[in-house]
Amino acid sequence: MIKVGIIGSTGYAGGELARILLQRSDVEIKWYGSKSYIDQKYASIYQNMFQIVDDVCMEENMEELGNLVDVIFTATPQGLCASLVNEELLSKVKIIDLSADFRIKDVAVYEKWYKITHPSPEFIGEAVYGLPELNRDKIKKARLVANPGCYPTCSTLAVYPLVKEGLIHTDTLIIDAKSGVSGAGRGAKLDNLYCEVNESCKAYGVANHRHTPEIEEQLSYAAGKPVMLNFTPHLIPMNRGILITAYASLSKKATYEEIKALYDNYYKEEQFVRVLEKDVCPQTRWVEGSNFVDVNFKIDERTGRIIIMGAMDNMVKGAAGQAVQNMNLMFGLPEDTGLKLIPVFP
Amino acid sequence: MIKVGIIGSTGYAGGELARILLQRSDVEIKWYGSKSYIDQKYASIYQNMFQIVDDVCMEENMEELGNLVDVIFTATPQGLCASLVNEELLSKVKIIDLSADFRIKDVAVYEKWYKITHPSPEFIGEAVYGLPELNRDKIKKARLVANPGCYPTCSTLAVYPLVKEGLIHTDTLIIDAKSGVSGAGRGAKLDNLYCEVNESCKAYGVANHRHTPEIEEQLSYAAGKPVMLNFTPHLIPMNRGILITAYASLSKKATYEEIKALYDNYYKEEQFVRVLEKDVCPQTRWVEGSNFVDVNFKIDERTGRIIIMGAMDNMVKGAAGQAVQNMNLMFGLPEDTGLKLIPVFP
Amino acid sequence: MIKVGIIGSTGYAGGELARILLQRSDVEIKWYGSKSYIDQKYASIYQNMFQIVDDVCMEENMEELGNLVDVIFTATPQGLCASLVNEELLSKVKIIDLSADFRIKDVAVYEKWYKITHPSPEFIGEAVYGLPELNRDKIKKARLVANPGCYPTCSTLAVYPLVKEGLIHTDTLIIDAKSGVSGAGRGAKLDNLYCEVNESCKAYGVANHRHTPEIEEQLSYAAGKPVMLNFTPHLIPMNRGILITAYASLSKKATYEEIKALYDNYYKEEQFVRVLEKDVCPQTRWVEGSNFVDVNFKIDERTGRIIIMGAMDNMVKGAAGQAVQNMNLMFGLPEDTGLKLIPVFP
Amino acid sequence: MIKVGIIGSTGYAGGELARILLQRSDVEIKWYGSKSYIDQKYASIYQNMFQIVDDVCMEENMEELGNLVDVIFTATPQGLCASLVNEELLSKVKIIDLSADFRIKDVAVYEKWYKITHPSPEFIGEAVYGLPELNRDKIKKARLVANPGCYPTCSTLAVYPLVKEGLIHTDTLIIDAKSGVSGAGRGAKLDNLYCEVNESCKAYGVANHRHTPEIEEQLSYAAGKPVMLNFTPHLIPMNRGILITAYASLSKKATYEEIKALYDNYYKEEQFVRVLEKDVCPQTRWVEGSNFVDVNFKIDERTGRIIIMGAMDNMVKGAAGQAVQNMNLMFGLPEDTGLKLIPVFP
Repeated sequence: MIKVGIIGSTGYAGGELARILLQRSDVEIKWYGSKSYIDQKYASIYQNMFQIVDDVCMEENMEELGNLVDVIFTATPQGLCASLVNEELLSKVKIIDLSADFRIKDVAVYEKWYKITHPSPEFIGEAVYGLPELNRDKIKKARLVANPGCYPTCSTLAVYPLVKEGLIHTDTLIIDAKSGVSGAGRGAKLDNLYCEVNESCKAYGVANHRHTPEIEEQLSYAAGKPVMLNFTPHLIPMNRGILITAYASLSKKATYEEIKALYDNYYKEEQFVRVLEKDVCPQTRWVEGSNFVDVNFKIDERTGRIIIMGAMDNMVKGAAGQAVQNMNLMFGLPEDTGLKLIPVFP
Repeated sequence: MIKVGIIGSTGYAGGELARILLQRSDVEIKWYGSKSYIDQKYASIYQNMFQIVDDVCMEENMEELGNLVDVIFTATPQGLCASLVNEELLSKVKIIDLSADFRIKDVAVYEKWYKITHPSPEFIGEAVYGLPELNRDKIKKARLVANPGCYPTCSTLAVYPLVKEGLIHTDTLIIDAKSGVSGAGRGAKLDNLYCEVNESCKAYGVANHRHTPEIEEQLSYAAGKPVMLNFTPHLIPMNRGILITAYASLSKKATYEEIKALYDNYYKEEQFVRVLEKDVCPQTRWVEGSNFVDVNFKIDERTGRIIIMGAMDNMVKGAAGQAVQNMNLMFGLPEDTGLKLIPVFP
Repeated sequence: MIKVGIIGSTGYAGGELARILLQRSDVEIKWYGSKSYIDQKYASIYQNMFQIVDDVCMEENMEELGNLVDVIFTATPQGLCASLVNEELLSKVKIIDLSADFRIKDVAVYEKWYKITHPSPEFIGEAVYGLPELNRDKIKKARLVANPGCYPTCSTLAVYPLVKEGLIHTDTLIIDAKSGVSGAGRGAKLDNLYCEVNESCKAYGVANHRHTPEIEEQLSYAAGKPVMLNFTPHLIPMNRGILITAYASLSKKATYEEIKALYDNYYKEEQFVRVLEKDVCPQTRWVEGSNFVDVNFKIDERTGRIIIMGAMDNMVKGAAGQAVQNMNLMFGLPEDTGLKLIPVFP
Repeated sequence: MIKVGIIGSTGYAGGELARILLQRSDVEIKWYGSKSYIDQKYASIYQNMFQIVDDVCMEENMEELGNLVDVIFTATPQGLCASLVNEELLSKVKIIDLSADFRIKDVAVYEKWYKITHPSPEFIGEAVYGLPELNRDKIKKARLVANPGCYPTCSTLAVYPLVKEGLIHTDTLIIDAKSGVSGAGRGAKLDNLYCEVNESCKAYGVANHRHTPEIEEQLSYAAGKPVMLNFTPHLIPMNRGILITAYASLSKKATYEEIKALYDNYYKEEQFVRVLEKDVCPQTRWVEGSNFVDVNFKIDERTGRIIIMGAMDNMVKGAAGQAVQNMNLMFGLPEDTGLKLIPVFP
């Protein structure tokens, strides 16, 4: 039995973690942490959990938690996990941080884009970027995993084979992303009210969204040289789902079949990456509720560009599902334990 | 291993059946029946099933199917199941019919409301109305189960204890229901286009919706006398979910505590009926993706009425989930096998 | 030129007032009042007004406003208008209050349902309930108009002819209402976040919604005796629109034609009430953006009940449009000035 | 009084044309053409028009229509207008074609992208591309106007100043567009059902959408050389609205202020193009129901690119509103007659 604590269990990602973990018989959630709802019943905050969870929300006491559980998920705002982590804690429990604190190796880059001082840069080196499709072996041995951002997960997996093989000019890479509203979190902000979001569409974080350096870093490793790109997220009126559409110039002529074979080869062992069939565009509805990333591409002979698309559930593969995938690896379990979730439609 | 055939597997309810059954290791779907998509890959119709289902859609050949599987689900338009069922078939396989063909015991009532001639009235007597909370023992022994309608499931369970105990004047009972659009099926009709449904709300089937006699029949059994009521469904812009709000005059003075105790008592053993806490209104978001029906009530001292509310996922407890619940009973399995689905939110 | 001040111009109803009034050449908005956004440009709060409105938001200074404008609209929380109104102010300007402060004649009823002490009960007697279809002549002469609530407008107009003619047993009257989210206002509350409302449906204010006594009062006048009813509003995922479905037992047998003639007769001179044709159910999409209330009914011969339906845009006829209709009457203008708005679809 | 005929009046664009024109006192709609609903009351197809329009739908008889009206709007599928237009007709009436038949000057390009043979290429030369902001003077004198596509209108206006001034490398131009569902028309197709579109997002027409050559042609005129670009539209769950996000490399260093001044200069006389203030991203909600295109841009110093955004109501400026704008010009009326529509929010 794996004993689990969730810090930030009343946010959307925390709630999704609870949903996924509660379906398992080999995991026990011992701690529903929440800054805002201490001592309130968890099922009064998330009524879907009525008669399923009896626990009350607990304060974020890492020290106590460290003695109680085997793994802590921190689904909290930037800076919190980094301010709590220390050697003693890590000697006792594994930590999977869903915030951005340990995703970026260059602390200066982190501090520039996030505009906060990193509270514990000494652990950045140790932290493993938790994208299992790229870092599986390192994750297995990690004490501290930086769970990737939602956009970076979808973006990186969608273009990785092309970048790794040098098939695109990375300086032409542009990623245009669309996300449902759950990605904005559960804070009571005017901008996220139903009537403000419904029946509308907008770009945000143009040229300065914080996921930009995270994507760049991962693709730089793949390219073996610095990658700089444009990333523009858009908010669209739906609960869940991310779609990314990426554009890049091909560095050499390539046929559909060649690139399809490349993608198939890269992802043939991956259970959670589905390379779609020719001319089938990824759609978020076909991955909702699951840990899948659906990817496909189209070559435009006229312009010499390739258009790459990826669809994902931002709450699952983009957050809680991937965190559980990492947990499985860290505890030596089959990677898909508890994650054989069939997408829900409609 | 239970071998399953689904007739009408490319409708929404058929797709949900597949989703629920595919998560199980003790069930194998042998037949994806579809009138419209014969010989096409099932995963090309429902792309969520890509790399999960390799089968192609098959015609609706009951005879062949009878030799192949242990149970057939018919998620088809009215009249189809009734036209295919026969003694030979029933001697070989169990049938769970998601259409209305065998729900109503009085064939004249069926024919009046559905405006079709019943093709096989001789099996109506044998068919068991598949609402496990009321008919559990009969379902266990049934060869032919009539899976209840979505509105009748939610309505009946919400008001059953009051009717059974004679606590309301049944001639004052009014049920006002609200449903998401998946209940309208996957047919390409103008009225169900996105732009026709979105940002709108309407009543339909006013005073003549076909689920009316089904609800009346079930409540009549509970009351021990004929029940006649008004039932008005409304279409609202969401994919899934049914909410019913029922109104009736109390036949005797009763406190909140008394009626709460009554509901608790009736449903204390039921895993899929959740009686909510005081003043908590059922909401469809808290049951989405699950087999739960959430119910609650409020007494209005001023008017002497009780207002009863029920929320349910029309695709799960209102269709495919309940069908699986019935299958479990018919095969002697724990009733909740494959149905411990935690509601998905958001 | 009518000079107008809007107190609460940054709420949804205030914004809709601005939208309607800005289309007119005989009205000038002199004051965009706002408690939350003082000194900010109105068009920075409502960007639809960019390059249309140059004004900044002003504090709620009634005294100054009284000297500046001909009419003040108060689109503010309960209690504010009542705390500001006084004889001196009313001697200078007309006031149209979109809050509930002056809607209910019995101050004890107001204070019981709204749970606040009325700050200026001395003006309740003078205030005219601004439902032009019922009170046109009084409105023309009024200094202080209580603009009706959204649900009461739709409910009252839908059932008025039946109540007035004694055709229904008013003690059997039940009103089940469904509303879009704009009715909940623009406050940054968790419950109104996109992900909390989208893909869900719930009842609220069951047996205690504040619009209940308002509807009861108006229908009591029509009935010539006290009317007590059940009113249950539901929140549904759309921006605008109210649909009410009302149920009552007919007090005498009546044909469709007789009741249709009755409705036609009552509303034949009314530009904003449309009695639909037989079997056509009102839908909110067909009135969106307009000042119409669409009504229709269905007789259920089986149960002896009549089901009455009404659809309306809660922002227009349910708030700002009706307020402008009242203004037109108070200033001796054609009642539909600026209100010949054709519903927007889709 | 301008007498108007609408061919295709029961499509969404046709309905929007009716809505806009019916608000005017100087226009009379004499002909509601419809292939599908001949002899049915228009208000039975679009119930928002109940008691506003009494006409029945007429067949598409251009000859009769030519004698009856001053201007014909064809809001019909590709090929229809081109098959009906002839010299005699044009000698009698003006034609504003909302289809693509006359938008593209090179008939070979048209036939390649639309995969149909052009029925009347002899009129392509005469037809004027009806984007008033670029072709105002020619439109005034035109007999036949090709009303631009929705995506081309938004795209062209958003990037025009940059292309015209040579500020971007046009071979780096990529346009990623997002559209509401009304753009897909009112045909009863499975893909446009509520449950198929809601809670989802997808790209379509990748590398082969028909609006691509239209945008390229217009921008080629501006650039004075051939422009070839990538254009990818996405379907998102909302009724109305188009958002485009365009990416291009700056051809020379430029400050925000310089480019802002350029946009301001280009559009300072344009009533329907709003250049937003610094860092304000266009959102479709702020233009809904209006004829505005909101544009803005952001320079990314890191990558040397400029990101340009445009938001528009696809039904208004993207179809019916622009058609009316063209009509106004062709009849010598103020260009904004009947188009001073304030965006509706929420």
